[in-house]
Amino acid sequence: LSEGERRTGVPGVATGLAVTGAGGDVLYVEASLADPETGDTGVTLTGQLGDVMKESARIALSYLRSRGAELELPVGDLKDRGVHIHVPAGAVPKDGPSAGITMTTALASLLSGRQVRPDVAMTGEVSLTGRVLPIGGVKQKLLAAHRAGITTVLIPKRNEPDLDDVPADVLEQLTVFTVGDVREVLDLALEPAATAAAAA
Amino acid sequence: LSEGERRTGVPGVATGLAVTGAGGDVLYVEASLADPETGDTGVTLTGQLGDVMKESARIALSYLRSRGAELELPVGDLKDRGVHIHVPAGAVPKDGPSAGITMTTALASLLSGRQVRPDVAMTGEVSLTGRVLPIGGVKQKLLAAHRAGITTVLIPKRNEPDLDDVPADVLEQLTVFTVGDVREVLDLALEPAATAAAAA
Amino acid sequence: LSEGERRTGVPGVATGLAVTGAGGDVLYVEASLADPETGDTGVTLTGQLGDVMKESARIALSYLRSRGAELELPVGDLKDRGVHIHVPAGAVPKDGPSAGITMTTALASLLSGRQVRPDVAMTGEVSLTGRVLPIGGVKQKLLAAHRAGITTVLIPKRNEPDLDDVPADVLEQLTVFTVGDVREVLDLALEPAATAAAAA
Amino acid sequence: LSEGERRTGVPGVATGLAVTGAGGDVLYVEASLADPETGDTGVTLTGQLGDVMKESARIALSYLRSRGAELELPVGDLKDRGVHIHVPAGAVPKDGPSAGITMTTALASLLSGRQVRPDVAMTGEVSLTGRVLPIGGVKQKLLAAHRAGITTVLIPKRNEPDLDDVPADVLEQLTVFTVGDVREVLDLALEPAATAAAAA
Amino acid sequence: LSEGERRTGVPGVATGLAVTGAGGDVLYVEASLADPETGDTGVTLTGQLGDVMKESARIALSYLRSRGAELELPVGDLKDRGVHIHVPAGAVPKDGPSAGITMTTALASLLSGRQVRPDVAMTGEVSLTGRVLPIGGVKQKLLAAHRAGITTVLIPKRNEPDLDDVPADVLEQLTVFTVGDVREVLDLALEPAATAAAAA
Amino acid sequence: LSEGERRTGVPGVATGLAVTGAGGDVLYVEASLADPETGDTGVTLTGQLGDVMKESARIALSYLRSRGAELELPVGDLKDRGVHIHVPAGAVPKDGPSAGITMTTALASLLSGRQVRPDVAMTGEVSLTGRVLPIGGVKQKLLAAHRAGITTVLIPKRNEPDLDDVPADVLEQLTVFTVGDVREVLDLALEPAATAAAAA
Ligand SMILES: [Ca+2]
Ligand SMILES: [Ca+2]
Ligand SMILES: [Ca+2]
Ligand SMILES: [Ca+2]
Ligand SMILES: [Ca+2]
Ligand SMILES: [Ca+2]
Ligand SMILES: [Ca+2]
Ligand SMILES: [Ca+2]
Ligand SMILES: [Ca+2]
Ligand SMILES: [Ca+2]
Ligand SMILES: [Ca+2]
Ligand SMILES: [Ca+2]
Repeated sequence: LSEGERRTGVPGVATGLAVTGAGGDVLYVEASLADPETGDTGVTLTGQLGDVMKESARIALSYLRSRGAELELPVGDLKDRGVHIHVPAGAVPKDGPSAGITMTTALASLLSGRQVRPDVAMTGEVSLTGRVLPIGGVKQKLLAAHRAGITTVLIPKRNEPDLDDVPADVLEQLTVFTVGDVREVLDLALEPAATAAAAA
Repeated sequence: LSEGERRTGVPGVATGLAVTGAGGDVLYVEASLADPETGDTGVTLTGQLGDVMKESARIALSYLRSRGAELELPVGDLKDRGVHIHVPAGAVPKDGPSAGITMTTALASLLSGRQVRPDVAMTGEVSLTGRVLPIGGVKQKLLAAHRAGITTVLIPKRNEPDLDDVPADVLEQLTVFTVGDVREVLDLALEPAATAAAAA
Repeated sequence: LSEGERRTGVPGVATGLAVTGAGGDVLYVEASLADPETGDTGVTLTGQLGDVMKESARIALSYLRSRGAELELPVGDLKDRGVHIHVPAGAVPKDGPSAGITMTTALASLLSGRQVRPDVAMTGEVSLTGRVLPIGGVKQKLLAAHRAGITTVLIPKRNEPDLDDVPADVLEQLTVFTVGDVREVLDLALEPAATAAAAA
Repeated sequence: LSEGERRTGVPGVATGLAVTGAGGDVLYVEASLADPETGDTGVTLTGQLGDVMKESARIALSYLRSRGAELELPVGDLKDRGVHIHVPAGAVPKDGPSAGITMTTALASLLSGRQVRPDVAMTGEVSLTGRVLPIGGVKQKLLAAHRAGITTVLIPKRNEPDLDDVPADVLEQLTVFTVGDVREVLDLALEPAATAAAAA
Repeated sequence: LSEGERRTGVPGVATGLAVTGAGGDVLYVEASLADPETGDTGVTLTGQLGDVMKESARIALSYLRSRGAELELPVGDLKDRGVHIHVPAGAVPKDGPSAGITMTTALASLLSGRQVRPDVAMTGEVSLTGRVLPIGGVKQKLLAAHRAGITTVLIPKRNEPDLDDVPADVLEQLTVFTVGDVREVLDLALEPAATAAAAA
Repeated sequence: LSEGERRTGVPGVATGLAVTGAGGDVLYVEASLADPETGDTGVTLTGQLGDVMKESARIALSYLRSRGAELELPVGDLKDRGVHIHVPAGAVPKDGPSAGITMTTALASLLSGRQVRPDVAMTGEVSLTGRVLPIGGVKQKLLAAHRAGITTVLIPKRNEPDLDDVPADVLEQLTVFTVGDVREVLDLALEPAATAAAAA
């Protein structure tokens, strides 16, 4: 198994893309739901997330709380089970809105029990209504995805012009989808339900 | 569909006007109500809102909590469903009281299920009793509305003198209403109930 | 209608007097009670209030919670309905204890459904037992009241000597009452119950 | 009525002594209990109290919560009624532990319905077990009490040596009691139950 | 009665030892439990305690919550009664972990109704499992205990070598026990149950 | 008994390894569960833990809350019993993610009632899905483990290359396991259930 396959081998983990001091990098957004027997409720956010990134997690949760039933997700699970979103590495500060769709995808994966495809990485701000808003660093993020062995990348529709800056040899080895609504993201990124394990 | 139509295509989104470092700009206030099944309650405010703008959201909510029934809004929905107000873009700090009527309109749209007219933008502080109080930056805001393809703008009655500063060619392409009470705003901005989708 | 009449045209709004950088000014203290159907409880304070002014609001509330029944106010309303006190303009920082009796009056107006007389403005710190304590800026505050068309002003008994500093022509156009207990304030400022609209 | 008589004319108000920038001063500690109908519970502390003085209020409350029944106080009232302790003037910062016995006395007065004697002022830190601990500024505090027309002063037993510093002519016009336990304070400061009004 | 006897004359008070700017000093840790009738719950910590000392109080409480039943303490009392730990003097900042065993002893005294022996003082950090961990300032602390008329001192086993630094004439007038587990502390410091008054 | 045997002699204590200013050191992570009779719930973290280390504790808890039942741990105990995690010495600030697997092990020991083997020490960040992520300071940590008489050390699989830097004579006296999932850690570190004492 590759590192990416090990990391995303259970429902609740989605692969994002970030700009760091040293170019771009792949990051994993992990989500868990507490066993109802533990009595845990509420939301926990860890990974040294900055204010904007914490707000992204709140937006992802509210999107699913208000529209999850339309997506046939069992949103009642959010009532009696504590939600935790973590972004390793634990000691590295992270910020920015561009993990919004990755967080939404990790949560939808967890609720549906459908794993996220290990060959897919994504970047995009999400609005409260599910619109995918543009982000920065497309070039560095695609280079990082390519280095990590990712083959499919999802970016915001309004970032399509930024693809011109990506080296042609990298671009031809990647399948890039531009997306305008988070429903498109979920359709592209989640494995079919048939192969899904139970959410944990 | 235009960007504005895509953004305001569901109940709960209203178009506001802001003064930014680079002149004026259009902004979208998004509101959501959690599915009661999710057990979520309380109020969440995101979008890097400053103290004054967060207070505007509290005022908009209290206005609807105390006077919403007079407006025939189903205010009981506020009891069992978490409210979230978000103002994209997620990473851009925003402040000031002038989004007060926009927030009130987004919430009233959400509760009523009546969409906000996509051709309408607005600016104005709201008081706890629903009075519309004057704001700054009328000229930049109307120029921004015009650039964004908005055709109808609502401004506070006490800002009427500021219209003198707006270039005549812009002003003749805009329908400007001056308003003194937030009830006038809702009458002008909300689509008729007949065309309303279900609130989410 | 004058600005003051529009602003105080519903129960729950009282006119105060403040010292600002540019002399004195009239301010409106607005109070609302949430519809019990909304499930809202607790206290919300907005208007960029400083620590001392927030404490004034707490004192006004505790005064009514402990002694309101003696004043024949329906204090049980405070149990199931969220209280919000707001002082426009939303972006202007305000502080000091001198709005204490104005806050008490706004709340008593709201609970009783009796409007505050639009021609009355007031200034005075309130103690937890309802004593009216002296404040500063009497001269500037009376000049501001006069400019705003106010005809009756309530000031603390212990500020009576400060009236010597107010220009005689202003003073003769104002009816000034000096008050020692907040019950006197309510007797002078609230409209008779007969003309009262329903509290909101 | 003197100022002191007006201020302490209801149960729940006790006269303390403080050292200020300009010598000593008399201060009034006011306590109130919310009407159970208001649904208010919890503890509110106002008067721009510093950390140490807020802790004094917590200690006074815990002393009465743990030992109040031994003192035949109706401590069950503390369960369903919000407690508020306020120390005017609202805008003047105050700190230090020496108001401990004054706070305990104000609360015991409120619970018992017995007024505090208007001719009595006091200063002393209180421990969680009711011990009266020494404080500073005895000389300035007694001079202030004398100026304010107080005739009886209570000070900690361990401050007895500080009486040497008080001018003889002041001392002979004051009755000074030194106290080691807060029960002695209550015995000396509270009016007999017979003359008590109802607690509010 | 000596000062120490007066201060520790009720269950819930234990004598500790601290290093201060002026050498060592005796301090009293006071604990109280609210009368269940008062409805008070939760934990209150006062005495200008620093972060480390507040954590010591949390550790002492958790030790008793997890292992108190083994010690035959009525730990159910902690459920319905607010706990308050105070360390006079109220205005003196205090910090450090060395009051851990003193806090544990004060709480165990309170729960058991067994007074702490007035001739015993102690110093030692406590771990969550009840181990007594080494502390600093043994010499200054024993000198302070001696000055205060204490005859028995408990120190951590791992501090035994520090006794070499204590003057021989002081050491021969003190009985020093070295302890490794907080159970040993309680056996040595608590009066027999027979002489116990009711906990308060 | 050695120090390590005394410290880990009850379920709920695991031995970690840290890098300090003076090289590496052994540390003990202690966990406790409150007696349900005490009414205590929630999570308490002490030991002057920095933000990253507090997040590690939250991750360890969420891991067990979501996956503990698969590990046959009685996770329902987490519902009615307050959890406390403490890392002595109380006054020493600690931070970093590398105690993640040690915290998970201490909690799993506590829940299972199986003691942690006193000869085992460990270091490794844990992800929300139980992956063991690489940490720093392998050389100093192994030297510290060796000095403390530890014979078995668990490190993250991705830190295997760092073993090259450890002196050969130290390495040959240690049994080092490299681990990729926290389940391997628990298998290696926990004593068999048969020898376990009751959890406390
Ligand atoms: Ca970013
Ligand atoms: Ca799957
Ligand atoms: Ca603005
Ligand atoms: Ca509509
Ligand atoms: Ca003022
Ligand atoms: Ca005023
Ligand atoms: Ca004082
Ligand atoms: Ca003082
Ligand atoms: Ca210390
Ligand atoms: Ca000590
Ligand atoms: Ca006893
Ligand atoms: Ca570390």
